[in-house]
Amino acid sequence: VNTQCLEIAFNDHRSYRIYIGAGLLAGVGEQIARITQHRAACIITDTNVGPLYLEPVRTGLEEAGFTVSVLEVAAGEQSKDYTVAHELWENLARQGLHRDGLIVALGGGMVGDLAGFVASTYLRGVDCIQIPTTLLAMVDSSVGGKTAINLAAGKNLVGSFAQPLLVVVDLNTLTTLPACEWDNGLAEIAKSALLEGGQLYSWLNEYADDLRKQGKGAVQQAVVRTLAFKGRVVVADEKEAGVRECLNYGHTFAHALENVAGYGTISHGRAVAEGMRFAATLAQEAADVSEAYKIEQNTLLEALGLVEFCDYYPADDLFEAMVSDKKVRNNEMRFVFVTDPGTWKTVVVDVDLLKIHLILWAQARL
Amino acid sequence: VNTQCLEIAFNDHRSYRIYIGAGLLAGVGEQIARITQHRAACIITDTNVGPLYLEPVRTGLEEAGFTVSVLEVAAGEQSKDYTVAHELWENLARQGLHRDGLIVALGGGMVGDLAGFVASTYLRGVDCIQIPTTLLAMVDSSVGGKTAINLAAGKNLVGSFAQPLLVVVDLNTLTTLPACEWDNGLAEIAKSALLEGGQLYSWLNEYADDLRKQGKGAVQQAVVRTLAFKGRVVVADEKEAGVRECLNYGHTFAHALENVAGYGTISHGRAVAEGMRFAATLAQEAADVSEAYKIEQNTLLEALGLVEFCDYYPADDLFEAMVSDKKVRNNEMRFVFVTDPGTWKTVVVDVDLLKIHLILWAQARL
Repeated sequence: VNTQCLEIAFNDHRSYRIYIGAGLLAGVGEQIARITQHRAACIITDTNVGPLYLEPVRTGLEEAGFTVSVLEVAAGEQSKDYTVAHELWENLARQGLHRDGLIVALGGGMVGDLAGFVASTYLRGVDCIQIPTTLLAMVDSSVGGKTAINLAAGKNLVGSFAQPLLVVVDLNTLTTLPACEWDNGLAEIAKSALLEGGQLYSWLNEYADDLRKQGKGAVQQAVVRTLAFKGRVVVADEKEAGVRECLNYGHTFAHALENVAGYGTISHGRAVAEGMRFAATLAQEAADVSEAYKIEQNTLLEALGLVEFCDYYPADDLFEAMVSDKKVRNNEMRFVFVTDPGTWKTVVVDVDLLKIHLILWAQARL
Repeated sequence: VNTQCLEIAFNDHRSYRIYIGAGLLAGVGEQIARITQHRAACIITDTNVGPLYLEPVRTGLEEAGFTVSVLEVAAGEQSKDYTVAHELWENLARQGLHRDGLIVALGGGMVGDLAGFVASTYLRGVDCIQIPTTLLAMVDSSVGGKTAINLAAGKNLVGSFAQPLLVVVDLNTLTTLPACEWDNGLAEIAKSALLEGGQLYSWLNEYADDLRKQGKGAVQQAVVRTLAFKGRVVVADEKEAGVRECLNYGHTFAHALENVAGYGTISHGRAVAEGMRFAATLAQEAADVSEAYKIEQNTLLEALGLVEFCDYYPADDLFEAMVSDKKVRNNEMRFVFVTDPGTWKTVVVDVDLLKIHLILWAQARL
C-alpha cells in the first residue's frame, strides 16, 4: 500500500500530520528529525508492544541522531493510572529529559492516553509523537489530543487536551493484533460512519466484509476515512464544547458497562457497539428515532462482526456508573442519538425512562 | 484601603481579573456568580488556612446560590505531590463535580499550585478561582497560570499552564501570616523590581522599610505593582518560550538549595534572595555585570530584611540538583542575570565556572 497523509490544521495555525502506510516504523526517526531540531527522545511502550516493535523505532531514532531512552509499562488497562503516571514522571526527571525532549508513545490506546497525559504534564508539557499499534488507537485515540488516566471512580476522569506533534500509523503492526482487539477498532469505525453518513457510511456498508476479514486495502481506507472524519470534528471543536460531543455516541452506556464489569474485562469495542445498540433502542422512545434506523445500524454492526452482548450486569450498577460519568451536565442525563446515518442530536433523557431501559436491557440478559 | 482591579488580557481574547483589597473573602461568591452561570464549587484549602478563612468564602458562595463542597489537605509543601493530587481527583469524582463545576483554591502557593493542577487535569480541565492567602501567592503564584506538583526528583516538575478564571486577593488574610512567610513574598517583589526597574524599582527602594514593617498601604501597592509587572510578562509569553524566563531570576540556585535542604526546610523567599545574591556574584565573572549592581541589589534585599544565608550545603549536591532542574536546556546551564535594575539577559555559563562558584559559596559557609 502507498503511504497516505492527512493534515490536522487548527484555525490558530497549529497543525500536525498523520502518515498512514505499511512499514513506517523504521522511518519515524527521520520523520521526526525533519520537524524538530531537538535530539532527545523517550519511547514509552508496554510489555506487549515493546518486544515486537520497539527496535525499529529505537534504531531509526538513533540513526536520525537522537539520544533515546525507553520506559516500558505493564500491558493492560490497569497501567493507565496515577501510580504508573507518577513512575513515568519520576523516570523522565531522573533521565533528565528536558523541555525540548520528545516523548514517543508506541502502543495501543492505553499507552497513547497515558504517555500523552504524562507528556502534557511533565515540565508543564513536552511534545509527544503517537505511534498507534492497535486499530482502535489508529482510528481514534492517537488523533485529537485527548489524553487521560483512569480513576477508581471512572474511566478517563483525569487528563488533558494536548495535540500530538506527529502521528505515524504503520498498518504492519496490525499483523500481530489479537483477534478480540479488532472489534475495538471496528466499533469506532462504525460509530464514525453512522455519525458522518455520506461516503464514509456507504463505503463501510460496501466494504464491511473485507474489513472484517482484515483486507489490507480496506483497512487502510477505513483508517484514512475515519481519521479524516475525526480530524474535521476535532478542528471544529477541539475541547469538546460542542460538536465533538457527537464522538461520545454509544459511549455513555459503554463506559458504564466497562466500569461495572471492571476495566479491561470487556473490550471497549464490544462495549461501544452495545452502547450504540442501547442508544438506538432508547432513542426510539426518547427521541422518536425510527425502528428502521435501529435495524440499519445493527445490521452494519453485525456485518462487522460486532454481535449483540449477552452477559448480565445489574441495571442499578449501570445507572450509578452513568451518574458519576463526566458526560452528565447540570444533573441532566444527556445522550447523543444518531437519528439517521449522518444526522445526530443530543437529547436530555428523563432519568426514569433511562432506568426502565437499563432494567429491560439487564432482564433480557438474565 | 480601596479595592483595586487588574485585568490580564491575552491576545486571543481570554482574560481574567484580579481584585486586590481588604475584606473581600465574603464577597467572592457574588463575584464568581457574576462571571459564570454554573453553581457548583469545590473549595480546596489546607489545615492552616481552612480554620481561619474557609467560613466566609463558603458562606458567600452558598448565599450566591452555589452548591459547595470542601476538600482540606494537610498544610505544608509535602502535600504538593501526586498522592494528594490523586486523592483530590478521586474525591472530586466521588462528589460528582462536573465539567461546569468550579474549583476554588483558598490558601498559599502550595494550595494554589496543587489545586490549580488538579483543576486543569480533572475531567481534562475545570475552571479555577485563586484566593491567595500568603504574600508570596498574592504577588506570584496565583497569577500567570503555572500549576504544579513536586517530584522526588525536583520541585514543580509536573504541572500545566492553565489560567485562572478569577483571582481575589484579600489583604486581611495577611494579618495571620507567620513572620517567616513574609520573606517569601518580599523576595519575589524584590526580584520583580530588579527585573522591571523604573517606577517599580524606585517605589520599592522608597518604601522598602514600610513594606518590611507590613504597612497596609505599602503592601497593597506592592501587590498591585508587582502583579501589573507579572501580568505584562505573562501576556507577552504565557508558556515561557521567551521573556517569561526572566521570572526565574535567582530561581535556578534557589530550587537547588530547596531541593538539597529538603522541601520545606528553607523558605522559598530566603532561597530566592540567596539565589539572586549568588547570580549577581556569578554574573560578575560570567557576564561582566558590575560590582556596583551587586551592591545595589544586595542593599535592597537587606532593606527588605532578606539577609544573607548562613547554612552550609555541599557544592556537589547543589550542582547535581541544578543539572536535574528543568531550566537546563540542551545540556547548557542557562542563567538569567540582571545586569542593571530593569535590564536582564540569559547567559550560558561554563559548567566549570559554575562549579567553582558553588564551591566558593559553600566554603564561605563552613
